[in-house]
Amino acid sequence: MGVHPLETNPFDPAGIPSQVDTVLGEFLASKAKHASGAWMPTEITDVLRSFMLTGGKRLRPALCIAGWYAAGGPGDAAPILRVAASLEMFHAFCLIHDDIMDHSAVRRGRPTVHRTLAANHRHNRSPAAADALGTGAAILVGDLALAWSDELIHTANLTSAQLTDILPLIDTMRTEVMYGQYLDLTTTGQPTADPERALTIALYKTAKYTVERPLHIGAALAGADEALRIALSAYALPVGEAFQLRDDLLGVYGHPARTGKPRTDDLREGKHTALIALALRQADEAQGRLLRELLGNPALEEDGANRLRRVLTATGAPAAVEHLIQARCKQAEQALQRAAFPTDVARVLRELARRATARTA
Amino acid sequence: MGVHPLETNPFDPAGIPSQVDTVLGEFLASKAKHASGAWMPTEITDVLRSFMLTGGKRLRPALCIAGWYAAGGPGDAAPILRVAASLEMFHAFCLIHDDIMDHSAVRRGRPTVHRTLAANHRHNRSPAAADALGTGAAILVGDLALAWSDELIHTANLTSAQLTDILPLIDTMRTEVMYGQYLDLTTTGQPTADPERALTIALYKTAKYTVERPLHIGAALAGADEALRIALSAYALPVGEAFQLRDDLLGVYGHPARTGKPRTDDLREGKHTALIALALRQADEAQGRLLRELLGNPALEEDGANRLRRVLTATGAPAAVEHLIQARCKQAEQALQRAAFPTDVARVLRELARRATARTA
Repeated sequence: MGVHPLETNPFDPAGIPSQVDTVLGEFLASKAKHASGAWMPTEITDVLRSFMLTGGKRLRPALCIAGWYAAGGPGDAAPILRVAASLEMFHAFCLIHDDIMDHSAVRRGRPTVHRTLAANHRHNRSPAAADALGTGAAILVGDLALAWSDELIHTANLTSAQLTDILPLIDTMRTEVMYGQYLDLTTTGQPTADPERALTIALYKTAKYTVERPLHIGAALAGADEALRIALSAYALPVGEAFQLRDDLLGVYGHPARTGKPRTDDLREGKHTALIALALRQADEAQGRLLRELLGNPALEEDGANRLRRVLTATGAPAAVEHLIQARCKQAEQALQRAAFPTDVARVLRELARRATARTA
Repeated sequence: MGVHPLETNPFDPAGIPSQVDTVLGEFLASKAKHASGAWMPTEITDVLRSFMLTGGKRLRPALCIAGWYAAGGPGDAAPILRVAASLEMFHAFCLIHDDIMDHSAVRRGRPTVHRTLAANHRHNRSPAAADALGTGAAILVGDLALAWSDELIHTANLTSAQLTDILPLIDTMRTEVMYGQYLDLTTTGQPTADPERALTIALYKTAKYTVERPLHIGAALAGADEALRIALSAYALPVGEAFQLRDDLLGVYGHPARTGKPRTDDLREGKHTALIALALRQADEAQGRLLRELLGNPALEEDGANRLRRVLTATGAPAAVEHLIQARCKQAEQALQRAAFPTDVARVLRELARRATARTA
């Protein structure tokens, strides 16, 4: 085996998605082979493979590897790549379960996993029975993705010290994102005029989970000290909040052909986002009445969603969210300037911040 | 700190449930404290605590500790107890998600977790919205139980060698039980006259998960060799299958006041159990027609269930299942006689086999 493409300086993240996909593809192929051999269904690995390998930005793996470089990589890159892939497997778990909880039919331009599984089992079943089975089977596919994200770490050939350093971070990351999702779920349908509350959800569900912890985990693999971890957080948290704020805007104003998801779901579910909280706070009486009438209304269709969008825009909330995003991008840039990251790492983090916050997909 | 009650010979399993519950109670209390401190909901830990600490046989922890003794424990028992508690936390995850998939309303004589959470959130919501939220929140509570079962292991203060030895077993156990549940789920509502298929589900979902793997994990903690592992399997697999066969009988003929669950659920869902497969195989034409009409019928009530029970009994299936149970108990007893387990361990395994297979609850 030659020099691993990642074992070079300067750090070039261009190859990460395909390398992560190779690890995931081989892992799922070995699981499928094992299942066939034991007379077990291969539907699970088929569904996971087609969900994971046909979309996604591979942002968390890229950040994990960036954290490793920031802390003084490169060394042997193969174990790091496997940990990065495990973050992507964990993310598949999150998305599959989130889509069930959010009743989402479409993700990445295709049917969500529970919808795919319901369609697979329509034969000989009533539509209601097939839907219930699709949901149950998708819960299990998500559970397996979570368990397999562990297995990817356990089989990454890490040193004892690396394993001991990252397991507590993995544990913390999981608890944080699940609590964040719990808050998201329990406030959905009952948005308030409190943007701080929405930002707390964004902090746990996105900023820590999507940006800070992947960086920390990568850095820990290279033996990072506390000071580096703090410097990474100073960059990560504003970028992560901006990422979520951009997601909130795209969820309402995005182009489905580019985002791969409908732009009525968040409004119909009544998601408690900063966008909605600011709109409720800034709305006049008539605007407030319309917002409360239509947000979270299960019967909401494209017409009502368009009315909602016009009112949201009229309250000035999207412009205010855009302002919050820019302020966070500036904070992140300042953090990068203060930190002593190697030049190539800083360049990549700057580029990842841009991709995460200025995106249209 | 005095001598730990488990650090004595001979092995006496009487204290295990209360010691496991102490570990679980302290773990959940620390999670609750941390959540409060971070403005996070304590509902998750409240629900988990009340679910976990008010019922359950603690069979898997007892088997884990028995495996440890079989392989030459005792040594420092505290880490072993924490691993045993992690199996119970993992089991909570399994039950919470299984109850969602099986649409079960009652477990251990109380509302299931998704029902409890739906009731908690009925205020200001339609019944349908509260039910959907209850299901989503219970998916998350289950996810956290799975993640926390890892955290219990990671914080058990195991040696590197212990950790390296048990992680692959934990990974295997999880994949097995999830595949077993997947088979169970996808065959539910479409039972066949093939008892082998039902026994394959029982092997993965119960025999390996409930009996074999806990023993293997405990034994690995004491550095067991392959020969001991094989001897434990020879005992575990027949006991585990008998456990599931007993469960199938109790699910149809048990006393709800003792089992803590309704005895119509399995029939209404149309579970593909060995009991049902044998009944379908042995039924005459009229019996077969009635079985196919009522099994898995979502409208099944107590009357229809009683008719089903009479027909099942008339086919001779319950007696045949009882025969399968006895054959497996005999196999397990022979395995115990062949194995060179310490006398106290053999005595406990014999007692656990009796409890698992002759139970009424």
